[in-house]
Amino acid sequence: MAPLSSWLEIEPKSHFSLHNIPFGVISTPANTRPRPAIAIGKYALDLRTFTERNGFAALSMIQPHQHVFSGSTLNAFAALGRPMHRVVREYLQSVFLANGPFPNVLQENEQLRKDALLPLSDITTHLPMHIGDYTDFYAGLFHAQTVGTLFRGAQNALQPNYKHLPVGYHGRASSVVVSGTPILRPHGQILVDPTAEAKEPSLSPCKKLDFELELACFVTKSTRLGEPMRITNAPDHLFGVVLMNDWSARDVQAWEYVPLGPFNSKNFATTISPWVVLMDALEPFATTGISNDKQVLPYLDEKGHKSHYAIDLQVTLASPAGGTSTICKTSARNLLFSFPQMLTHHGVGGCPFNVGDLLGSGTISGETKGSKGCLLEQTENGKVEVELEGGERRKFLEDGDMLTITGVCGTEDGVLIGFGECSGRIERAIQISSR
Amino acid sequence: MAPLSSWLEIEPKSHFSLHNIPFGVISTPANTRPRPAIAIGKYALDLRTFTERNGFAALSMIQPHQHVFSGSTLNAFAALGRPMHRVVREYLQSVFLANGPFPNVLQENEQLRKDALLPLSDITTHLPMHIGDYTDFYAGLFHAQTVGTLFRGAQNALQPNYKHLPVGYHGRASSVVVSGTPILRPHGQILVDPTAEAKEPSLSPCKKLDFELELACFVTKSTRLGEPMRITNAPDHLFGVVLMNDWSARDVQAWEYVPLGPFNSKNFATTISPWVVLMDALEPFATTGISNDKQVLPYLDEKGHKSHYAIDLQVTLASPAGGTSTICKTSARNLLFSFPQMLTHHGVGGCPFNVGDLLGSGTISGETKGSKGCLLEQTENGKVEVELEGGERRKFLEDGDMLTITGVCGTEDGVLIGFGECSGRIERAIQISSR
Repeated sequence: MAPLSSWLEIEPKSHFSLHNIPFGVISTPANTRPRPAIAIGKYALDLRTFTERNGFAALSMIQPHQHVFSGSTLNAFAALGRPMHRVVREYLQSVFLANGPFPNVLQENEQLRKDALLPLSDITTHLPMHIGDYTDFYAGLFHAQTVGTLFRGAQNALQPNYKHLPVGYHGRASSVVVSGTPILRPHGQILVDPTAEAKEPSLSPCKKLDFELELACFVTKSTRLGEPMRITNAPDHLFGVVLMNDWSARDVQAWEYVPLGPFNSKNFATTISPWVVLMDALEPFATTGISNDKQVLPYLDEKGHKSHYAIDLQVTLASPAGGTSTICKTSARNLLFSFPQMLTHHGVGGCPFNVGDLLGSGTISGETKGSKGCLLEQTENGKVEVELEGGERRKFLEDGDMLTITGVCGTEDGVLIGFGECSGRIERAIQISSR
Repeated sequence: MAPLSSWLEIEPKSHFSLHNIPFGVISTPANTRPRPAIAIGKYALDLRTFTERNGFAALSMIQPHQHVFSGSTLNAFAALGRPMHRVVREYLQSVFLANGPFPNVLQENEQLRKDALLPLSDITTHLPMHIGDYTDFYAGLFHAQTVGTLFRGAQNALQPNYKHLPVGYHGRASSVVVSGTPILRPHGQILVDPTAEAKEPSLSPCKKLDFELELACFVTKSTRLGEPMRITNAPDHLFGVVLMNDWSARDVQAWEYVPLGPFNSKNFATTISPWVVLMDALEPFATTGISNDKQVLPYLDEKGHKSHYAIDLQVTLASPAGGTSTICKTSARNLLFSFPQMLTHHGVGGCPFNVGDLLGSGTISGETKGSKGCLLEQTENGKVEVELEGGERRKFLEDGDMLTITGVCGTEDGVLIGFGECSGRIERAIQISSR
């Protein structure tokens, strides 16, 4: 792909190339009211200011809908639907294009550049969407295999349903936070000695704090109770993709999760990256996921349609001692089910969706040692240690650890479609001993 | 308790006595915009109209907050907190009191009575709150014992964690509907022959459609990420209680639920009753739940505080053939954990809450045969049949069946604190065979 070239200086390795144009919500010290924006190079374009100063004057289609950029989330923009996302994204690309059709909109408008084109280093990012319901799936085949083997042995690693449907559970929308939010080590009920005969729990700060490398996808279309969608229409219901870290308290999880699934072990925080990469931006990197040796039922059959994305994913751990280590490299192709399949299955019984609902992929792991998307897998539930730069070791996350997920499509300079960062630093548990 | 007497005719057996004053959201054919209301006798008092016509003129405390009755949910009113709920509820009682202090407000104001006091038979009820997150617990001890025995035998009926923490899982907020909403029989993946060696599912209308008798409680106070509450403060975080039917597709559940819990088997619909009975109204019926033979950890210890309620619960099934049968009589005392305990446990790891979040109790069953709060228990998962009036029988719900939960505190004429009805009729599954 020949890179589109911009009048704005964009570094060749930037995640936010002219080919990307991801959407988010920002504020600044001078204007603390959150507002929609796009990221481009080292800048955010404040879409509220851009709209108020007639930045969309040349795009007649958006005229009746300009209010979508005046709110504090992307929900109203998302609700316009994919054809409108495409038009707006392509228009914004053309505004930044070198020798493009609209030099007077921004390139030659010094005042608007000054007011609306803000260095990323000066802005605060916020949750991009108001999330109605959040669902987390379990579509990472190699993750499910490894974890299943740890707990049930290799013969019974995958439950009989696993390849027939995207296994998922309802998560907690209120605890989804944006990248950069500090992660307080949670308290919870744990068994100090799980092997003891007497199962007597205590309330304790989590001792097995873990990350989970995931992708997540926002819903862009409302549906009504009792109105399932077809798999062929499901892509039209998707807005865009972010990176996600589904922080997990493994000791809390082990004690609480029978028989109804994970609960407090997950609902203390789930971090997402701030910039939503639109489905159209990902389209050039569409591919297939892991091949499924079971034939899925017709309602889930995509008939070979490429609805996975070749996103290279990486996790780094920055220790408070100073070293930064890459502890995982994997690919988003390691998913058995795609977002259209997850959404279609989720709705097959009639469950309704709202714009802004979030679907998590489940932990993404590869088959090899360095490609495991959580410490539970990497350390075999704390049995072996992970070695970090500088000689440190980890079984689980320690206070002060900064965990960062990055993701990017492509390798060529100037055409990267990247997600930026999804990061969080672990803070020491609060005192609740007096309770 | 001597009944308070009203100038309004209220039937002695009315659920909506002058002692109750439950809050809901209504609309009428003449004014389809949903608005807050209370139920009293056979009437709803439209609080938006009442407010606009200076019905609260004598209550100076509410003056700065009158906008809470202009919206389409009770969230803004709930957010005012329990002291204000008390003041407003007691003022409205005094407005309806015979020989009360405010006869000119409504009793002697014929025009306002005509405009704001609407027969319940003429109104439509709506979801009373915007629900951010919905969580369902599993605190019905006898339900958990019976179901655990069915699936794991009597020795392993309860998991080791059961008496130490209120087991719960995140539900789907978008599929919570108000009483009266038709319940479409859902499709889902099921194993037609679960005993067969090959686990090959098919997509089918649910064949084991069930109800679950529950209570649910609304949250009235927002909390922030990482800020757990104390058990002693938890009651201040509760707004009021409704009846709930957590419809369940048992065959879908059996196939999908490992390892992450129920999902599509629950998210096709959950029905709640329209009138929220405030915590203050329930207070005279406060009692203890089932005694727990495990000592709970200090953060969950209510030290004998009465935070359960003596609510008599009943379920009827009206068959399309004509007969109506009472298929369950039980009490809300059959819960091992209270709502304050559920909320405190839910938040102990730092999970934040929003006003309008909903907590379900889990299925409420007694110990005896006629007191089981779901058909899974009553029919031992379809092994035995329930006999209905008129000679019909049921293993699970059939198309056209109308299921109605009622609940009431007290037995004396004129002082009942009732919940009205939580009902839904099963409609035939839609056709999705062409997919």
